[in-house]
Amino acid sequence: MFLDKIEPNENTIKLLLTTDNHVGYAENDPIRGNDSWITFDEILKIGNNYDVDMIIQGGDLFHINKPSKKSLFHVIKSLRQQCMGDKPCEIELLSDPTAVFSNGLDSVNYEDPNLNISIPMFAISGNHDDATGEGLLSALDVLAVSGLVNNFGKVKDNEEITVSPVLLKKGNTQLALYGMANVRDERLHRMFRDGKVKFQRPSTDDWFNLFVIHQNHAQHAYRSCIPETFLPHFLDFVLWGHEHECIPSPIHNKETTFEVLQAGSSVATALSEGEVADKKVFIMYIEGQDYSIEPVQLTTVRPFVLKEIELSQTKLVAGSSSKADVIALLIEEVEKSILQANEKYLKNHPNESEIPLPLIRLKVEYTGFEIENAQRFSNRFIGKTANVNDVVLFYKKKTPKEQVKKTKFDADLIEESISNTKTTELQLQDIISDFLHQTTLSLVPEIGLNEAVKKFVDNDDKNTIQTFINNETKTSVNKLKKIEIDDNEFYGNDDEKTQKTAFKQLLAELKGDPSLMEINIEEPIKEKPAPKRKSKKSKEILSDDSDVEILEVNDNDVDILTDEDEYKSKKKATRGRGRGRGRGRGKK
Amino acid sequence: MFLDKIEPNENTIKLLLTTDNHVGYAENDPIRGNDSWITFDEILKIGNNYDVDMIIQGGDLFHINKPSKKSLFHVIKSLRQQCMGDKPCEIELLSDPTAVFSNGLDSVNYEDPNLNISIPMFAISGNHDDATGEGLLSALDVLAVSGLVNNFGKVKDNEEITVSPVLLKKGNTQLALYGMANVRDERLHRMFRDGKVKFQRPSTDDWFNLFVIHQNHAQHAYRSCIPETFLPHFLDFVLWGHEHECIPSPIHNKETTFEVLQAGSSVATALSEGEVADKKVFIMYIEGQDYSIEPVQLTTVRPFVLKEIELSQTKLVAGSSSKADVIALLIEEVEKSILQANEKYLKNHPNESEIPLPLIRLKVEYTGFEIENAQRFSNRFIGKTANVNDVVLFYKKKTPKEQVKKTKFDADLIEESISNTKTTELQLQDIISDFLHQTTLSLVPEIGLNEAVKKFVDNDDKNTIQTFINNETKTSVNKLKKIEIDDNEFYGNDDEKTQKTAFKQLLAELKGDPSLMEINIEEPIKEKPAPKRKSKKSKEILSDDSDVEILEVNDNDVDILTDEDEYKSKKKATRGRGRGRGRGRGKK
Repeated sequence: MFLDKIEPNENTIKLLLTTDNHVGYAENDPIRGNDSWITFDEILKIGNNYDVDMIIQGGDLFHINKPSKKSLFHVIKSLRQQCMGDKPCEIELLSDPTAVFSNGLDSVNYEDPNLNISIPMFAISGNHDDATGEGLLSALDVLAVSGLVNNFGKVKDNEEITVSPVLLKKGNTQLALYGMANVRDERLHRMFRDGKVKFQRPSTDDWFNLFVIHQNHAQHAYRSCIPETFLPHFLDFVLWGHEHECIPSPIHNKETTFEVLQAGSSVATALSEGEVADKKVFIMYIEGQDYSIEPVQLTTVRPFVLKEIELSQTKLVAGSSSKADVIALLIEEVEKSILQANEKYLKNHPNESEIPLPLIRLKVEYTGFEIENAQRFSNRFIGKTANVNDVVLFYKKKTPKEQVKKTKFDADLIEESISNTKTTELQLQDIISDFLHQTTLSLVPEIGLNEAVKKFVDNDDKNTIQTFINNETKTSVNKLKKIEIDDNEFYGNDDEKTQKTAFKQLLAELKGDPSLMEINIEEPIKEKPAPKRKSKKSKEILSDDSDVEILEVNDNDVDILTDEDEYKSKKKATRGRGRGRGRGRGKK
Repeated sequence: MFLDKIEPNENTIKLLLTTDNHVGYAENDPIRGNDSWITFDEILKIGNNYDVDMIIQGGDLFHINKPSKKSLFHVIKSLRQQCMGDKPCEIELLSDPTAVFSNGLDSVNYEDPNLNISIPMFAISGNHDDATGEGLLSALDVLAVSGLVNNFGKVKDNEEITVSPVLLKKGNTQLALYGMANVRDERLHRMFRDGKVKFQRPSTDDWFNLFVIHQNHAQHAYRSCIPETFLPHFLDFVLWGHEHECIPSPIHNKETTFEVLQAGSSVATALSEGEVADKKVFIMYIEGQDYSIEPVQLTTVRPFVLKEIELSQTKLVAGSSSKADVIALLIEEVEKSILQANEKYLKNHPNESEIPLPLIRLKVEYTGFEIENAQRFSNRFIGKTANVNDVVLFYKKKTPKEQVKKTKFDADLIEESISNTKTTELQLQDIISDFLHQTTLSLVPEIGLNEAVKKFVDNDDKNTIQTFINNETKTSVNKLKKIEIDDNEFYGNDDEKTQKTAFKQLLAELKGDPSLMEINIEEPIKEKPAPKRKSKKSKEILSDDSDVEILEVNDNDVDILTDEDEYKSKKKATRGRGRGRGRGRGKK
């Protein structure tokens, strides 16, 4: 139970909770280059000062999946200075380390007789440190093999996930620590829905069950986030990583009965609303089934002020004649924001004499007005702001008429219309999507390719695309080998057209296979799949309520449904699919 | 003194010597991918089996300066498994660790109370792990900050190097361990020649002085290698890294009186003569002033057979008619080489049943003959050789007439004519050189740019070129600011031509400055330079024997001297330049 305060005693497990440290963010920026690791170091020092038993990190410790030597250097240095020492770690590990940790040495660092770990860190992989290419190693694996971090919650299987807890004990408090490395949201959403995610539970009820997850939390399109209600209700507390906005207190979920803490990032990686809230880490006290949370504000974080301005709401007159006035107004707003940022900093650091340059962002809706180049505008503030090229973001609201012709079901429509009003900035994904629609790839799935290109750009990982194409090719070849072909149909007829038709059908079957829509890593197809029905047929099956038949439903079909009623009937049918696995746990 | 055998006792320091492990070489090769770290692991195990006190690594531990996660993972794993444990390290460190180690924590790993190091490794940076870009960090710095390696011999100054020994003691044996990270050969050669490299010595004579260096050793052009005679003669033993050929025994240098061990690489990174010799590491026993060496052959190294064939020396007839016979002959030679490689492997591994695929290389001089595409030829041996694209290297001998018009002095001429007969393979440097000669860069020095591009390609370091250009720009701007300009000459005359001439002269002065010919990192110019003399004048100074005047000699002048006598007279003069610094140490 979530209590206001727990006085720590010998039975209290003290944790520091942090996530999304993004070490290495903007590391080549002459002003902000050191920000990320300075704050990471501050966090470890806080852990030391609070004398915590362990640190839990909710993913994206590094900003890119192949961190620079500089990032590695600073993280390793901080871990060695802050997390090693003579203080013994009082927490007992009850799990078999080979089953719950993945570090190449199958051990937990603080039990290694060759390492003097005082505060062990337990971390999961986020989307920024995923393990594509290079032998499926993440940056976290490098830290883990060096014994500085315990990497838990690794997802090893693409088809089914079993989350095994790290069982820990201090005095009479027992902590079951669950973690799950980031999985692509759409995929994980589907896996949860299909009952493909299992949680192993200790056999007794006297455990505190803490889950660490790194996924889209809310405010995203329904199928690309993980609703809290998907998580098993026996959990007591969830540390939610990936979302950068710090929500300074755990939020109770009435339906699931657990609390969720969205701890937020420790460095602003975007000049957006989510990064405005003060950055914090959290000290958690667990005793028996009770816990309390103490937020600790980070002091090394650069102040950030964001303002939204709609020029049409000001006194200014639209058109080119007011250009100089627009610029003058915006300059004034920036100056005011700088003052505001400095005041905020001084309030938090009464003893500091030197104020760091703040991050300033004006979001300006300028429909009907004339503006100047954003970079040119921003460069005026060199020496006054930390970001010198993007102090201002000009955008135009999309007009509603652009949102016709939607074929998806309502929930998505609403979500998307909200997000569309925000900005007209081009998304990489849109460009790729456009490009892919112009080409016609027969065998390579667009979703997967899009995802691979995104990873390549986000993570600077040269191997992503190659790995993806190789795996797809392998999978397709396996599929092709296993498809039953009617020899007569293929060879028996000299009519070229018949052959072409047969081949096209083959391709269609191949494309219709759900496994092709995923980045399928190293998992060859184990069984010969049952012959596939055509789309029409699948829909017929949907209205049939037999469990066995419905297992053949193909996820692609969901995407092409246009009728809401049909969707609902399908959803109902889908719920029946749990095959008993998840039924004891409520809604799913 | 070099003895045949020393029976180890409590006064004996036992070292393992290894160099150029190039972990990560060809790591994406489906056949050879794991070779480099398997052998690195074997080396550490040998250290363990021989119960050595420490391991000395002579540079290029990693193949690239930004190693992959996979390479880091395997190196860290091996170090943790083989070099940590309860056996105490019996060697006492007498130096101040802050003065001799660079690891961000200023300590030696085996004295850290939080790490249980049984066999400390001491490593220097080679050319493959130099520290350009990214805060001047090398991969070795990452290992060092993690406490797994001690990085010594870092070169911090561009203008003057002081080599400070790591002073170690076991019983009554005292070891002064000197190291020097790789410096560009031409530069280091010049620094040695100019007395800019100093060695600090213990005040008493009862030390064993061991030096670890990573430079071109011999068989290179005179000015781009470090002659052994440049090294101080008080040294007892030199471990020479960088050269991949393993010379299995220390070679005594009569002039300097020390021995030099060229230990060679532990993985073949090229299919060249230097990599043919068996790969070894060396156990060194030091007792007082005496030492012995025991070579240990590495068993995990893939067998490699190289053959040279001149088609004109065979019975085949030149011309296109013999093409099929040429191919048949070469296939036969490859088959024979494979058999030979397998026999060699079985001899070294009598108990192994599985023979690894060997590396095979035929070097074929084919002037006058018709051949087929090298890759097509090589692909015949898929499944039989480990290298499947370059089993054969076709080349033509250069004809002597191409070597006229040389303007350099004789020593270089001879060296180059030797190297030119070897192959007509295109060198990257030649391409850049050609390109640079076609353009006319006024301010950016060609040598430096060429070097930067080479580093970019060799080390996959995106920042190299940018860093170089930034530094050059900074240096040039500083120079420009400090040059005294005659205002009258520049502004007083309206004649445009006069202004142009003045500016051209300015540029010439700038280009003539030696500091511009180097990659000048972070070192701003400290003093206003004295007004430069023109080239002609400098030459006059050369024949003048006054020390003070000669300090103004400019290294560029050396490069444009064409007359050998003049070179000699300059060399004589240059010798006088040591200002007493190096004189006590013999020749120099």
